[in-house]
Amino acid sequence: MRFISETSSDGVREQLFTLGEIPGVLWTPEGAVGTRPLVVMGHGGGQHKKAPGVLARARRFVTDLGYAVVAVDVPAHGDRPKVEEYDRIVTENQARVEAGEDLAPLIAGFQALVARRTVPEWRAVLDAVQQREHVGTGPAGYWGVSLGCGLGVPFVAAEPRVRAAVLGLGGVAASAEAAARITVPVEFLVQWDDERVPRAQSLALFDAFASTEKTLHANPGKHGEIPAYELESTLRFFARHLG
Amino acid sequence: MRFISETSSDGVREQLFTLGEIPGVLWTPEGAVGTRPLVVMGHGGGQHKKAPGVLARARRFVTDLGYAVVAVDVPAHGDRPKVEEYDRIVTENQARVEAGEDLAPLIAGFQALVARRTVPEWRAVLDAVQQREHVGTGPAGYWGVSLGCGLGVPFVAAEPRVRAAVLGLGGVAASAEAAARITVPVEFLVQWDDERVPRAQSLALFDAFASTEKTLHANPGKHGEIPAYELESTLRFFARHLG
Repeated sequence: MRFISETSSDGVREQLFTLGEIPGVLWTPEGAVGTRPLVVMGHGGGQHKKAPGVLARARRFVTDLGYAVVAVDVPAHGDRPKVEEYDRIVTENQARVEAGEDLAPLIAGFQALVARRTVPEWRAVLDAVQQREHVGTGPAGYWGVSLGCGLGVPFVAAEPRVRAAVLGLGGVAASAEAAARITVPVEFLVQWDDERVPRAQSLALFDAFASTEKTLHANPGKHGEIPAYELESTLRFFARHLG
Repeated sequence: MRFISETSSDGVREQLFTLGEIPGVLWTPEGAVGTRPLVVMGHGGGQHKKAPGVLARARRFVTDLGYAVVAVDVPAHGDRPKVEEYDRIVTENQARVEAGEDLAPLIAGFQALVARRTVPEWRAVLDAVQQREHVGTGPAGYWGVSLGCGLGVPFVAAEPRVRAAVLGLGGVAASAEAAARITVPVEFLVQWDDERVPRAQSLALFDAFASTEKTLHANPGKHGEIPAYELESTLRFFARHLG
């Protein structure tokens, strides 16, 4: 793990790093020492580790809860090189949608493919970050919606250090088997008028989690329109489960 | 409006009253003077104005938010006399369920019948309570699940003073037309394994509210098993909308 740059603003220390070929960013409270909960954040499709929605939430997790937060670029996103296989599949999928196929299962299949790379990457990032003195081996959480849900479900299923997860804007197609292996508390976000994920697919994914404590929050609006008050709920959800 | 008795404990003043033939209870902060938000609470079927679930929530609305809270017995509940017509219908419905009919539409029909009495009663209670000096004409909210939802939906639809409502454990059958007239913010509680209200009926009722701000919270468990953390969410919901 190699740290590249460091800045601080408004109480938040931001460290850019690479772990092998993976570019990442670690946020912690300015001046923090010692062990604290760590939230891994997955970004959306076409976004990157410092996309506005990721950054705004990460800063609140740090300033309100005193947590550490880490996000990395998904392959073919942000500072990472294109992946020819992904480009080919995206082009094929566009053609299939134009030919009348449903978008949702194509997205799901693509996310399952990407997850085969990101799950081991994110586990290695968790290993490396928890070795830093200002993070330590405290409880971990996960936050990710849309692509961050498609990749997050198999990650949370595979990673016993994750004790609570906020997921959403995702359907069951890619993730039923992994979802059935998740037993930690889940807060699951649904946009009631999601134009990308059919409502029944979202409800079926919520249904599939094996967690005894899971809570679904549905709000009107399209895929990208999660209301601001859900961030307040997320803060309380993590505080309840990660301390 | 006639006040019958008054007690105080742990910062909450409790006044029992009657308004005509309606027995009710008003909770306010001990020593409160001046106008404050008022939450009307509807109790569940077979319950009464001081049922444990009503009382526990009412105390938190008073102590955490400084609100006034009022609850009255629904006809044929609590301190009110039996209603022969209701008894007859309940008996008939039991026979129809034993003969194989679905329970949900029978409950819905019964609630619609009772609402024809409770809507004008609750509006009169709101009139009377808001004339008290320690309540005043501030914004009003409504909280009610199960029977409290079946009766609450037509009440909220009819009563412009209600600015925000927590509803739930109810289906669309009794309430579609009234729900479509509700435009205030709604927090709607669904129990994912509700044995009394079919899930699709619950989701359809959420769908039916005309409110631009509405949020559905679904949790695993049966009809009576709303998790404790939903009360925390309810407090924040009212604080957001009633001040």
